[in-house]
Amino acid sequence: MNVRIFFAGDVMGAPGRRALQRGLADLRAERVLDAVVVNGENAAGGAGITRKILDEFFACGIDAVTAGNHVWDQKETISFIVEEARLLRPYNAPPGTPGRGALRIEKNGWRLGVLNLMGRLFMHPLYDCPFRAADVALGDELAGCDVILVDLHAEATSEKYALAWHLDGRVSMAVGSHTHVPTADERVFPGGMAYQSDAGMCGCYDSIIGVDREIAKRRFIDAMPARAPVVDGVASLCGLLAEIDTETGKAVQVERIRRDYPAD
Amino acid sequence: MNVRIFFAGDVMGAPGRRALQRGLADLRAERVLDAVVVNGENAAGGAGITRKILDEFFACGIDAVTAGNHVWDQKETISFIVEEARLLRPYNAPPGTPGRGALRIEKNGWRLGVLNLMGRLFMHPLYDCPFRAADVALGDELAGCDVILVDLHAEATSEKYALAWHLDGRVSMAVGSHTHVPTADERVFPGGMAYQSDAGMCGCYDSIIGVDREIAKRRFIDAMPARAPVVDGVASLCGLLAEIDTETGKAVQVERIRRDYPAD
Amino acid sequence: MNVRIFFAGDVMGAPGRRALQRGLADLRAERVLDAVVVNGENAAGGAGITRKILDEFFACGIDAVTAGNHVWDQKETISFIVEEARLLRPYNAPPGTPGRGALRIEKNGWRLGVLNLMGRLFMHPLYDCPFRAADVALGDELAGCDVILVDLHAEATSEKYALAWHLDGRVSMAVGSHTHVPTADERVFPGGMAYQSDAGMCGCYDSIIGVDREIAKRRFIDAMPARAPVVDGVASLCGLLAEIDTETGKAVQVERIRRDYPAD
Amino acid sequence: MNVRIFFAGDVMGAPGRRALQRGLADLRAERVLDAVVVNGENAAGGAGITRKILDEFFACGIDAVTAGNHVWDQKETISFIVEEARLLRPYNAPPGTPGRGALRIEKNGWRLGVLNLMGRLFMHPLYDCPFRAADVALGDELAGCDVILVDLHAEATSEKYALAWHLDGRVSMAVGSHTHVPTADERVFPGGMAYQSDAGMCGCYDSIIGVDREIAKRRFIDAMPARAPVVDGVASLCGLLAEIDTETGKAVQVERIRRDYPAD
Ligand SMILES: [Fe+2]
Ligand SMILES: [Fe+2]
Ligand SMILES: [Fe+2]
Ligand SMILES: [Fe+2]
Ligand SMILES: [Fe+2]
Ligand SMILES: [Fe+2]
Ligand SMILES: [Fe+2]
Ligand SMILES: [Fe+2]
Repeated sequence: MNVRIFFAGDVMGAPGRRALQRGLADLRAERVLDAVVVNGENAAGGAGITRKILDEFFACGIDAVTAGNHVWDQKETISFIVEEARLLRPYNAPPGTPGRGALRIEKNGWRLGVLNLMGRLFMHPLYDCPFRAADVALGDELAGCDVILVDLHAEATSEKYALAWHLDGRVSMAVGSHTHVPTADERVFPGGMAYQSDAGMCGCYDSIIGVDREIAKRRFIDAMPARAPVVDGVASLCGLLAEIDTETGKAVQVERIRRDYPAD
Repeated sequence: MNVRIFFAGDVMGAPGRRALQRGLADLRAERVLDAVVVNGENAAGGAGITRKILDEFFACGIDAVTAGNHVWDQKETISFIVEEARLLRPYNAPPGTPGRGALRIEKNGWRLGVLNLMGRLFMHPLYDCPFRAADVALGDELAGCDVILVDLHAEATSEKYALAWHLDGRVSMAVGSHTHVPTADERVFPGGMAYQSDAGMCGCYDSIIGVDREIAKRRFIDAMPARAPVVDGVASLCGLLAEIDTETGKAVQVERIRRDYPAD
Repeated sequence: MNVRIFFAGDVMGAPGRRALQRGLADLRAERVLDAVVVNGENAAGGAGITRKILDEFFACGIDAVTAGNHVWDQKETISFIVEEARLLRPYNAPPGTPGRGALRIEKNGWRLGVLNLMGRLFMHPLYDCPFRAADVALGDELAGCDVILVDLHAEATSEKYALAWHLDGRVSMAVGSHTHVPTADERVFPGGMAYQSDAGMCGCYDSIIGVDREIAKRRFIDAMPARAPVVDGVASLCGLLAEIDTETGKAVQVERIRRDYPAD
Repeated sequence: MNVRIFFAGDVMGAPGRRALQRGLADLRAERVLDAVVVNGENAAGGAGITRKILDEFFACGIDAVTAGNHVWDQKETISFIVEEARLLRPYNAPPGTPGRGALRIEKNGWRLGVLNLMGRLFMHPLYDCPFRAADVALGDELAGCDVILVDLHAEATSEKYALAWHLDGRVSMAVGSHTHVPTADERVFPGGMAYQSDAGMCGCYDSIIGVDREIAKRRFIDAMPARAPVVDGVASLCGLLAEIDTETGKAVQVERIRRDYPAD
């Protein structure tokens, strides 16, 4: 059986949530989506995620939400992540970190595994090795899954490609997040893994990675601290859609998706 | 008059040079290219550029070659860059750095300006501010140019977008380099500037940013020093093609280019 | 005429302020201090400085207060630094930064110059070059000063020593700050400059650089965000005392100072 | 029984080796040293260590040699470290790294354990957690040792103090290395651990951390690549001497050592 999995990149504040909801509805009007995973680390005003937003995501039929370096930006997350298995934080966070980094979902006759990894280069020197962490997860929580999707939350393209080659042949789909810019290198790897270095952000691209361009730009010049708010305007859904054969776990097709939606 | 400018991203070793030459020939068979600029920081075996390679580039009709953090990887560069104005190193290198970061070229009835900037985030804390450097170059070496192309050699998408908004309305085309992965965010900015966060590498994508995937991957896992050689195989030309009105200096069209070529 | 200048390192919260006040009183009971400069970047609960604390410092006879990467931690600082010349922020902050980085003080028959520099390695990639900045300040605001004290707020010992050799023969005293640990390399350089890589913190050393050791330690292990409060207990005054000939501007003697004071 | 353990910091090239040999001879003329450990990561011209130098160290009665980020700078090291247990590389290097990070030595009636750890902050994001690594080593290779010495090869004082509090009560002596500058914070911790944030370099202090000051300084200003050679001149032995009760494993006394020796 072939299933269609959609992964959407970092959802950036309210404009990102709006584009996500509209975009998913439009995609679903065109074709069946068998599973949807989104990176939610910036969903709450650009910083983390709340219980309320998470519930909205699940109400849209999203199966799992991944995260990254912004996972703890909202104070409440640390309490609800413990009992909410569908919100993942990076699997290679140090032992003792609340929450989980891998998830198994029973779908209609097939099992979906979701894995959230975080890079270390230019990101977080205190995280454990994502390569070894992936090996553990694949042999443990995700053993026996028919289709496995990995969110590679990382900065450096070298680390993303290194993880990709590490995973190809063992997972169905590995998509990067974190840079908030979609890459044009989507493909199926030789081992059957759908790949894209970054899915891109769901949010407003007339900005600096989703936030106010004057404030964010000035910070690069004058080095003064300043909070750059999420901006509104035309907002885009960005993500990767892969068609995967549940018998083999291999991708047969991959498509980069972008849909733009005007501000309200 | 409308002119077509093509910028190709980091040329990675011999496979990258091969794809560049073939790709340029193919593009020129289809349409007139009025100017071509390439980032050559990885042209010599992945590390810097030699006089010989530079001459091959010029022999292909390339107008100017930009660079980045790898500019000094070949010892000979420091001597020939002084007298070779068509090889640029980042303009915001500290005072006293050999070579130049901006170039004016007299074309047929119009003047092309080329500017090479380097980001600081995750890159080089000792470089000068690229925002202020750009202001200087635009008012000085590049004053009066009809069309200006900027190579934004940087890692962080936030810094690239910040530079983009800083330059929009003042230059015709700003394209990123350094990550070796093309981004899918090419567009014309509101002020008429053609933009893409990264042009992507000219080189072999069945790799880790152009080098051996086993060696480069192992380095992420075991942290042992190892030289990862450039790999050969199918190699791609990647770059951005913009059509620019020389009267206004504004882009009227932008197209992401990728052409794949088999190994010899 | 020989004058005695005392520089005290990063004052860490209330325990640091207490040790500073008691220590200065004790030092003054033993010998004349002709000028006192302290780094105040952590004076307000470990994070920045307030107008009130600054006034307490001046009331103790402190001549000038320097800062560093924590200078803007208190929101109010940005407004009062504009009119308060005795609070310095790093001189090599980008143009447009509020406040000043150099200060001239008329003492009894001699002029004291104070300069605050910040390193870039492992600190702030967006700051301007401190070497060139120092050259500017010495030729401009500090020209004609009889005695010049420089606070080198930096992380890397290599950068501190590089700045030291850059300044030796041109300033009377260059003392590092930021690491919160005193170094045992105090000396007079060949050109007559009193030097110490780091003055050490004024604060409680039964801690992790002044803050709660359990919380700060756990953050290194689990990588979870957590605010580590300043701890109280035995607190130390730490700094460098130099005797300088105002005729030559050269140090004739240098002494590392540490005084411990019990909690109230 | 009380034993005296001496740890010397990063030995920097030939001047460092000379100061080390003379200094050890002088110290031994004054008192009995029951064990000597030195950090040798810069012994070979500032970069790594060779078999020949290692043998010279052992010929001086040095019991064990630790290392750090420069451990692999000499190509030959990777082959001889496998069979030479007395040369340690950081224990928290990733699995598969050649060599060992912990060592047990049978002394006269007591067992000495030596542990080499490396920090991650500003150092090496791909190393494993040194806190968890230390827990493993103390329960495994070093279980049952009477006296344990730890070399904390790290940049940030915060990470060094965090490791110190993690180890106090469980080891006899924890001394930092890597910054090449001795700190003045030597003490016995409440749990009986001798501590100093950095032992300082064995080498020439009229330099920038042991290398040519003009070249090393210029690199900070012009950001051009340049090899800065080790300089000669007055060279110092720097280290920490601790007296430890083998019954309790606790330090009873600690002394910072520095001896200066002229160039030949
Ligand atoms: Fe992120
Ligand atoms: Fe994000
Ligand atoms: Fe490159
Ligand atoms: Fe680059
Ligand atoms: Fe501080
Ligand atoms: Fe600081
Ligand atoms: Fe070292
Ligand atoms: Fe080191």
